[in-house]
Amino acid sequence: MPKRSNTAIGIDVGGTFMKAALVTSAGDVLAKESVSTEADGGPDHMIARMAELVRRMKAVARAKSERPKAVGLGMPGTLSHREGIVYAPPNLPGWKNVPVAKLLSDAVGLSVILDNDANCAALGEYVRGAGRGTRHMVLLTLGTGIGGGMILEGKVWRGADASAGEWGHTIVHIEGRQCSCGQNGCLEAYASASSTAMRAAELIVAGEESVLKQILDRGEQLTAEDVVAAAERGDDVARRVWQETCKYLAVACRNIQHAIDPERIILAGGMSAAGRHLLDGVTESIAQFGSKMIVRAPDIRLAELGNDAGFIGAALCACGRAD
Amino acid sequence: MPKRSNTAIGIDVGGTFMKAALVTSAGDVLAKESVSTEADGGPDHMIARMAELVRRMKAVARAKSERPKAVGLGMPGTLSHREGIVYAPPNLPGWKNVPVAKLLSDAVGLSVILDNDANCAALGEYVRGAGRGTRHMVLLTLGTGIGGGMILEGKVWRGADASAGEWGHTIVHIEGRQCSCGQNGCLEAYASASSTAMRAAELIVAGEESVLKQILDRGEQLTAEDVVAAAERGDDVARRVWQETCKYLAVACRNIQHAIDPERIILAGGMSAAGRHLLDGVTESIAQFGSKMIVRAPDIRLAELGNDAGFIGAALCACGRAD
Repeated sequence: MPKRSNTAIGIDVGGTFMKAALVTSAGDVLAKESVSTEADGGPDHMIARMAELVRRMKAVARAKSERPKAVGLGMPGTLSHREGIVYAPPNLPGWKNVPVAKLLSDAVGLSVILDNDANCAALGEYVRGAGRGTRHMVLLTLGTGIGGGMILEGKVWRGADASAGEWGHTIVHIEGRQCSCGQNGCLEAYASASSTAMRAAELIVAGEESVLKQILDRGEQLTAEDVVAAAERGDDVARRVWQETCKYLAVACRNIQHAIDPERIILAGGMSAAGRHLLDGVTESIAQFGSKMIVRAPDIRLAELGNDAGFIGAALCACGRAD
Repeated sequence: MPKRSNTAIGIDVGGTFMKAALVTSAGDVLAKESVSTEADGGPDHMIARMAELVRRMKAVARAKSERPKAVGLGMPGTLSHREGIVYAPPNLPGWKNVPVAKLLSDAVGLSVILDNDANCAALGEYVRGAGRGTRHMVLLTLGTGIGGGMILEGKVWRGADASAGEWGHTIVHIEGRQCSCGQNGCLEAYASASSTAMRAAELIVAGEESVLKQILDRGEQLTAEDVVAAAERGDDVARRVWQETCKYLAVACRNIQHAIDPERIILAGGMSAAGRHLLDGVTESIAQFGSKMIVRAPDIRLAELGNDAGFIGAALCACGRAD
């Protein structure tokens, strides 16, 4: 049997699903699997589920004569990459200063490398997706919140305290809406999927006419997808809200360009499913900024790997591709 | 005679003065000199003045048995470090796509390394000033405009197109004042020395009472220094304007922390002469942001090298310390 390249197991833990895959050091996915997160069960329960996923991936690896070298674990929120500790992720009750890398490692007999989920997604897209061909790129994950991952000189940039890349909590509107983080005017308070839905709902509750009202009248939650669909059909409230979302993302892209000057900015996460509507909206907004000092317009693209970016990047971290 | 460490000549070109120094690769200044920029004379005239400064520094070097290895040249505005071309610096009439590195090199017989003045200041402070002991730091130059230089992993971070670090043109108030760059709500439009003076003048012209009115009445220009001095004496207009300046700088520091997560942020440039008034104002504003997600407060300090940082850093660039 021919000798394969090295492999690692990547896990991506989200609020709803946790996904695992057996991945080569080149980023090829040999097998993948997904289970529900069952976040309500708390850390011990979730770590047991992670361990079960790892065991199944190890079984797949054995059948392929592979010996995965380590586990890469991508998790949301602030954490210590170096110490393998998760501090206090949003949407995961009971997680407070959990040494998840050690606990999972003890359970599965492989070393575990912990990293922020947006860093993992950035590395995945860098090696196998929309970041190919660059050396410096910034990725924004646009979902319930807004995360960010940066690749500089081909390596994940984590910062002094592993909290870099949090573009979602940079302030873009000093007198603006309060963010869940406590600050006013964060990017996330305007341009996340949940804020997009919330701002539309606020306008409708305040009395504006919109086709989206029927969703609220049915007692259902509005989503950013609903807003995009209604904007496409010409609904005025939806159009204004979506344009505002795109304008704030344009500010973020411009700020990233001025601060970092990457070769490429990649829009990822659930809201990137809006595709052209997102990309055109952002680039049209940037064109209206009218800066005289930009030498080169930023190259902004949609992510290509969808939900696979996280576990591919986590596995690549475990293969040492991040450093 | 004992063999000294390597030396280089550093030049820092500002709108008013150009300064040159003979500097060791450890950042020691062996000699320095300053002449007026005479910007109105245009590029040829200015380059001749730079060449004259280099010749004098070479003469000093000869007397000390030194042979400077190269010239490091720090200039304002957008430029190409790699190609040695200055694109269109503000406040320097006639400079448009000038291949200044080649022109100066031809004139003095030494290779010339061009870099952004804020990058040079950052490198100078990193090696010899307020950045000592760090590996990652961001420096803001607070003057007529706001520039920025970043040291990541001990190297100057220039970005893909050598335009990184322009924190002055990141947008912090999306509906805000127009900046000279054409954008709305740039940091520079609020927190530069000139904007600080301008906002105070606007309030007075609009009819507010202030001790600063007498300066305007004499037909003189208000400066940020005047505003700081009046704020210290309890003048209400001056206090509000200064607090606002500090608040915007606090936003910049917070955004830098979220995006880059450096070990230290250094406030430099003319306005850093405000000392404690600046540092306390910024840190008090940050304390009011009330973010729940910061693991560590940013370490913010005043620059230590004053006007020397630029030519020290430029010389260190020429010694290869930037890369």
